[in-house]
Amino acid sequence: MAQRKLNFSAGPSAVPLEVRTFQQSCISVCGANSVLQVAQEEMLNYKGCGASVMELSHRSAEFAEIVETAEADLRDLMGIPSNYKVIFMQGGGTGQFSAIPLNLCPHGKEQKADYVVTGTWSAKAAKEAEAHIQVNKVLPKVDKHVGIPPQSEWKCSPDAAYLYYCDNETIHVRSHLCGCPKNLGMAGVTVVIIREDLISPPAVHCPSVLSYKINAENKSLYNTPPTYAIYILGLVLKWIKRNGGVGGMAKRSAEKSRLIYELFDKSNGFYVCNVDRAHRSRVNIPFRIGGTQGDEELEKLFLKEAAKRNMIQLKGHRSVGGIRASVFNAMSVEALTLFLEFSREFEKEHHK
Amino acid sequence: MAQRKLNFSAGPSAVPLEVRTFQQSCISVCGANSVLQVAQEEMLNYKGCGASVMELSHRSAEFAEIVETAEADLRDLMGIPSNYKVIFMQGGGTGQFSAIPLNLCPHGKEQKADYVVTGTWSAKAAKEAEAHIQVNKVLPKVDKHVGIPPQSEWKCSPDAAYLYYCDNETIHVRSHLCGCPKNLGMAGVTVVIIREDLISPPAVHCPSVLSYKINAENKSLYNTPPTYAIYILGLVLKWIKRNGGVGGMAKRSAEKSRLIYELFDKSNGFYVCNVDRAHRSRVNIPFRIGGTQGDEELEKLFLKEAAKRNMIQLKGHRSVGGIRASVFNAMSVEALTLFLEFSREFEKEHHK
Repeated sequence: MAQRKLNFSAGPSAVPLEVRTFQQSCISVCGANSVLQVAQEEMLNYKGCGASVMELSHRSAEFAEIVETAEADLRDLMGIPSNYKVIFMQGGGTGQFSAIPLNLCPHGKEQKADYVVTGTWSAKAAKEAEAHIQVNKVLPKVDKHVGIPPQSEWKCSPDAAYLYYCDNETIHVRSHLCGCPKNLGMAGVTVVIIREDLISPPAVHCPSVLSYKINAENKSLYNTPPTYAIYILGLVLKWIKRNGGVGGMAKRSAEKSRLIYELFDKSNGFYVCNVDRAHRSRVNIPFRIGGTQGDEELEKLFLKEAAKRNMIQLKGHRSVGGIRASVFNAMSVEALTLFLEFSREFEKEHHK
Repeated sequence: MAQRKLNFSAGPSAVPLEVRTFQQSCISVCGANSVLQVAQEEMLNYKGCGASVMELSHRSAEFAEIVETAEADLRDLMGIPSNYKVIFMQGGGTGQFSAIPLNLCPHGKEQKADYVVTGTWSAKAAKEAEAHIQVNKVLPKVDKHVGIPPQSEWKCSPDAAYLYYCDNETIHVRSHLCGCPKNLGMAGVTVVIIREDLISPPAVHCPSVLSYKINAENKSLYNTPPTYAIYILGLVLKWIKRNGGVGGMAKRSAEKSRLIYELFDKSNGFYVCNVDRAHRSRVNIPFRIGGTQGDEELEKLFLKEAAKRNMIQLKGHRSVGGIRASVFNAMSVEALTLFLEFSREFEKEHHK
């Protein structure tokens, strides 16, 4: 029985273990049906085929089934209409910073897109898009303590090819939808969901690995895809289906974040989330300890004490400091309870 | 004890199992020190850190050690000089088709490069480069039965920014060096080894995920890297070190390919490799059964009979047909012997 820890990483982050037991505030593993346990069992021999998934050709019947099932499950879970393509790519969100303008604006600087810059990631996306196209930033600089102005105040251009909005500002503002290393398995595979009629020849200098047209036409098998990452993605999708689907995840997520923000509210300014209430995340929760600016010594002590209790990866993003608790789908309400108990104890001892 | 099969996939392909035993011409697994076995053991809890490698933040101390050790072992194994950078990227060889011209020819069509087109992959590389730069093909169209003309006959340009040569024409001609899904672990990570002084700002429209400068300066952590694929790469490098390093691999490889070509030579035209002797691969061996053109019925039967004996992924590349035996580093001489025995029996029965 492996000694597992409570993992708050913002990504790559926790992968579901279906059954958890608690011993001395440490996560142990039992049950045999979880994502990591299935991956472990099948490591040397995938479904009796005599090889590991990572050894299979991406053109084998076994892998074809893996990729087709993953797509079907994703379509089912998210209710993706049949006129949308699902493409498995590489390069992560950062790869898409260029892929989106290269594919949706094949004429480059002659074309324009609107960017809703609300934090680090959308700012990076806009900056990278500027190398390809005209970028119109629809918002004035967003004050992270004030939040995003209502959509009626956005200055959109009538001739924009698309509007870029990032619902996953994991560092500053809000985060609901999540990347693959967060809610969909492991780092290394990027899921693109795109309406068919938007797929057309990209800019001439678009690398083939970033072309939606090439990758959609070749059913994500134009070149060797990240086979093992797609396999893990497939296992995670099955786990989500067994656990109530997107609705089940949303419910868990709402309950978990409610518990954390309640902790802050009841702490009389000891735990402070500097994000405007209207824009708070359910899954990626940055906060300071000892006041709005944070007491760095106290925060260090918090991380140290948490680690002693097997709660890991709580350090805030290097660009903003403080603490960040990422509570993606794989973290159960029960597991989170341990974190809340510890936090209340820590407050009791250090809140003067 | 898992029932493992003899895996001849051209990529993704076999991952090393250090100790193999043979039972009824089927590979079984014993020993506990192989790549897949270590990955299996550490799946839920990497070195006692309480999480799987695929759950760790790419900025954690644990992952930093994984990526630094992988780089150090690669440098050690390949004798990479200190003025060369090692970069872990995504997108595979196909991603590099664009990355190379975008990085080495920042001025685009004003610049030129020489391409040695010897088969499918280099032809694809040249075609993709034409979207970015002037491409000079140094060879006339290569006849795959004749092979590559000597270097003295290549028509190189004096003002080429670089010369592109692919030593890994897995489909047609020869293949010695190999991609990650072949000899270096699993699909999803791309290793770039580049002399420092060649790293400079790429073309303005180079996607950041393909920029050598950005990825080298950020030590492969500009965006979330394929963490698990880098971990498996690290395990494979350790395995290579324990098994004689590059020299050990070369020796094994020479012996394995000698045995296969000997089989062909002794078959009196039953097994035919259509590749010129001077350009034959040691690791990726395409052949026909029943004559130079191949008897398709006989080839189907061969694949079927092989599968019954747990020898898998022997079907030729879809573009050329026939049979292809890929014998990368992970396949031991002992394991190959089973294939040779079967092939001799098949010949005895069907060579009329």
